[in-house]
Amino acid sequence: MATTPGNLVVAQSGGPTSVINQSLVGVVQEALKYDSIQKILGGRHGLEGVLREEFTDLRKQTAQTLEDVAATPSAGLGSCRFKPKEEDCKRIFEIFTRHNVRYFFYIGGNDSALSAGIINKIAQEQNYELSVFHCPKTIDNDLLVTDHCPGFGSAAKYVAQAFMGNDMDNRAIPGIKIDVVMGRNAGWLTAASALARVNAGDGPHAICIPERSYTVSEFCTKVEDIFAKNKRALVAVSEGLCDKDGNVWLQSDIVRRELHDLGMESLVKWMDATGEIENAAGGAKLDAFGHAQLSGTGALADMLASIIKIHMHRKTGKKPRMRADTLGYAQRSFAGCVSDVDAREARASGAAAVREAMNGIRSGSICFRRTGSGSYSCETFRAALEDVSGVNFPKGVKQYRPIEDKFITEDKFGVTTEFVEWARPLLGALPVKGMLAS
Amino acid sequence: MATTPGNLVVAQSGGPTSVINQSLVGVVQEALKYDSIQKILGGRHGLEGVLREEFTDLRKQTAQTLEDVAATPSAGLGSCRFKPKEEDCKRIFEIFTRHNVRYFFYIGGNDSALSAGIINKIAQEQNYELSVFHCPKTIDNDLLVTDHCPGFGSAAKYVAQAFMGNDMDNRAIPGIKIDVVMGRNAGWLTAASALARVNAGDGPHAICIPERSYTVSEFCTKVEDIFAKNKRALVAVSEGLCDKDGNVWLQSDIVRRELHDLGMESLVKWMDATGEIENAAGGAKLDAFGHAQLSGTGALADMLASIIKIHMHRKTGKKPRMRADTLGYAQRSFAGCVSDVDAREARASGAAAVREAMNGIRSGSICFRRTGSGSYSCETFRAALEDVSGVNFPKGVKQYRPIEDKFITEDKFGVTTEFVEWARPLLGALPVKGMLAS
Repeated sequence: MATTPGNLVVAQSGGPTSVINQSLVGVVQEALKYDSIQKILGGRHGLEGVLREEFTDLRKQTAQTLEDVAATPSAGLGSCRFKPKEEDCKRIFEIFTRHNVRYFFYIGGNDSALSAGIINKIAQEQNYELSVFHCPKTIDNDLLVTDHCPGFGSAAKYVAQAFMGNDMDNRAIPGIKIDVVMGRNAGWLTAASALARVNAGDGPHAICIPERSYTVSEFCTKVEDIFAKNKRALVAVSEGLCDKDGNVWLQSDIVRRELHDLGMESLVKWMDATGEIENAAGGAKLDAFGHAQLSGTGALADMLASIIKIHMHRKTGKKPRMRADTLGYAQRSFAGCVSDVDAREARASGAAAVREAMNGIRSGSICFRRTGSGSYSCETFRAALEDVSGVNFPKGVKQYRPIEDKFITEDKFGVTTEFVEWARPLLGALPVKGMLAS
Repeated sequence: MATTPGNLVVAQSGGPTSVINQSLVGVVQEALKYDSIQKILGGRHGLEGVLREEFTDLRKQTAQTLEDVAATPSAGLGSCRFKPKEEDCKRIFEIFTRHNVRYFFYIGGNDSALSAGIINKIAQEQNYELSVFHCPKTIDNDLLVTDHCPGFGSAAKYVAQAFMGNDMDNRAIPGIKIDVVMGRNAGWLTAASALARVNAGDGPHAICIPERSYTVSEFCTKVEDIFAKNKRALVAVSEGLCDKDGNVWLQSDIVRRELHDLGMESLVKWMDATGEIENAAGGAKLDAFGHAQLSGTGALADMLASIIKIHMHRKTGKKPRMRADTLGYAQRSFAGCVSDVDAREARASGAAAVREAMNGIRSGSICFRRTGSGSYSCETFRAALEDVSGVNFPKGVKQYRPIEDKFITEDKFGVTTEFVEWARPLLGALPVKGMLAS
C-alpha cells in the first residue's frame, strides 16, 4: 500500500516511565528511514501541547542527544494527565490537517489508546489519510491485550532491588518493615517485590494486592504470625490496598468502622484529621480521570505502621522496631535503574509502530506476545485501538488487566512460583545478594 | 614491633550502608595474609552477638562468597543499635581473653569508636595485648576527623539519582515536589541532592538542612517563589528539619504555634492525632541513644505537603499538583546503587586497619584525607579513637560534624559550588540526563 507523504507527530502521555523515551526514540529513528515522512514533530506535554501547537523539531536532535534522552527516565517531551473531550479531538484533527500531519504516534496508557481511537475515527469520517498508532507504556502493567507493558520491567526491577536491600537491612536490624508500592488497580508492581527473594527466608514475607481485599484484623494477624515465626517481617503492600467494597483503606468506611470496633480510636481521629487538611486546602484534588491521589504521600504506610504498632503492643506488651516506607516516584523515574529487556522492547514498540504505518496500516496499538516455549523471547503485534482502550467493553467490565488468579496464592498474601517465572525475564539483570555461610 | 598470635573478631554496628560489607571483606582479606592471625571471627549483630558469643567463622567463606557479600548492601554479619555500658565492655573483654582474641575491628559510627575506646582502655589497664580498631561508616557523613565517611558516597549517589529522576518527572508533569532525605543532625546527604543538577533549570530548587533553622513562613514563601518563577518546584528537605531551638518540626512547639498563628489549625490537629497514636502504641519508641524515630515514616513529608497545599490554595485559589516522597531506607540499602569510589575506599579502610594492627599499633580509627590538589585522590590515616568518638570533647561541643558554613548559601536554602565540587568525586559515575534541544 502506498503511503501518503506528510508530517509526523509523536507525543507522550500519563505517568512517565524509565523507558517511555526509548519508545519515543524508536519512533524517531525508524521514521528517519522513510522519505514519505517529512517533518518529525514532538508534541509537548501530550495532547495539551498538540492543542497549543507546541512542537519540537525532532529531526534537529543529534544521534547522541537521542541516545541520551532514550537512556533518561521520564517523558522527554513532557507528559499530561489530560483526557481530551470529543471537541478537543476534533480540534486536534483540525491542527493535524492544517500541518499536513499524516502520522500520529501516542505513547501512553489505555486513555491514550482511547484518544488515538477517537482521532482515528474522525479522520476516517473525513476521509483524511492519517495513520494513528498507540505505543503502550505503564509501570502498572495493567493494559489489555499485551503480554506486558513497556515500563513495567524497569519499575519491577527498581521494586525488586529496593526489596533486596530492605530485606538485608531488615535482617541486619530485625523488626517489622512495610513498603508501599505503586499500583492503584492492579498489583503487578507490588507482586514484583517477590523477585527480590534469593536465599531461604528472604522477604517479602507477605504481599497485599488490589486484586484481593483485606480486613484490618487479617492484616494484623498475618504480620503478627510472620514476626512470631521469623523474628522479623518484610511486607509489600499495594497503594491500592482495599476493603471488600473495593475502596482504598484511607477512604474506607469499612476500615474506619473496623478500627473503631478494634478500639483503635486514635487512628480514626488521625483519618479524620487527614481529611480535614484536604478540606483546608480546598478539597481533595482529583486528577482528570476522577482518581484521588494515592502516590506522593506516605499516609497509607504510616497508617499501616500505626495499626501494627498498636496491635503488637497490645498483643505482646512490647514495641518491636516498626518502619514503613512508601517507595514513591523513584519507582518510575529513578535514574540508572533500567531493565535492558524493557529498554529494548520499549524502543522496538516505537519502531514497530512506524513500520506498520509505512506498510499502509491506518491504526493500531503495538502489543507484545511471547514466542516459543523455552527461554524468554517476545515479538510485537498489532492490536485494535478499541481492544486496548476497552472502549467497546460492556459497562462494568474492567478496562484494565488485573493479575490472573493463577499468579495469586490461595491465602491472598502472596504470589505463585508461576508468577515469578513469568515476571523474571522482564527485569533483566539483577544485582547479587550475597550471604555469609553460617 | 612483634604482633601477638591470636584470634581476630570483626563486627558491624549502627545503620547499615551499601558498602559496610566492603570494609568487612577488606578486614578479612587482609587478615588472611598474616600467620599471627589465627581464627577470623565475625561477631553477629555487633557487640550484642559478641556478648552472646555468637561468632561466624569467616575463614570458612569462599572467595566468591566474600566478593558477593562485599557487593551486597546492609551488614552481612548483622548490626545493632546497642550502646554498651562499662560493665558490658568489661564482659566483652572477658570474652575476648577467654577466646584469645588479640584483634578487634569494629565497623560503625562514633558510638562504635566510643565502645572500641572503652574496650581498649580496659585491655591496657589489664596489660592484655589487644589491638582495637574502628572503621568509620555512615551515610550521614557526620563523623569527626575524616574528610568523608565510607557509606556516604553510595547513599549520595542514590539521592542524586533519585533527584535526577524526580526532576525529570517534575518537568514532565509540572507541580510541587518535596523529597525528604535522611540525616538527623547533619545535612550532607540532603545537600548531595544538588549533584542531580545537570542542565539549566534543574532541581532541586531549594535545599533545607539541619545546620540551619526554618520557620513555616520562610518555607512557604520560598516554595511559592520558586513555583511562581519556574511553574514547578523540586525541594530537598532533611528529615532533621528543625526550628530555631533545634527541635525537629514534627515535635516542635514553635512550629505548632506558628501553624496556629497562620490559621492552619487542621495541621495542629493532625500533629495531635499523630502523637495520640504513639501513646496508643505504648509511647514513642526511642532508640538506645534516646533518639526519636525520624526515618521509616512519611509524616514530615506529608506535613510539608499539607502546609504547602493550604498555603498555595490560599494565595492563589488554585491547587497545584503537590507530591511528597520520603526517600526512605533505599538510601542506605538499595541493591545495585554503589559508588565505585566509595566501595574501593570502604574496602581499603578495612585492610588499612589490619595493616596498622600488624604493625603493632594498638588502637585507632581509620580516616581519609585528600592528597594532591588536582584530580581527586585520597589516602587513609590513623586517628585516635577518642578524637573520632568525641569522648573527650567539652560538654556542649558537638560530637558530630555538621556541614561547614562555606558549603551553605547565605539564603540557607542551598549549597555552594564549592560543596558540589567537594562531593562530586565521592559519588563515582552517574547516569546521563539527556534533554531534547528545544
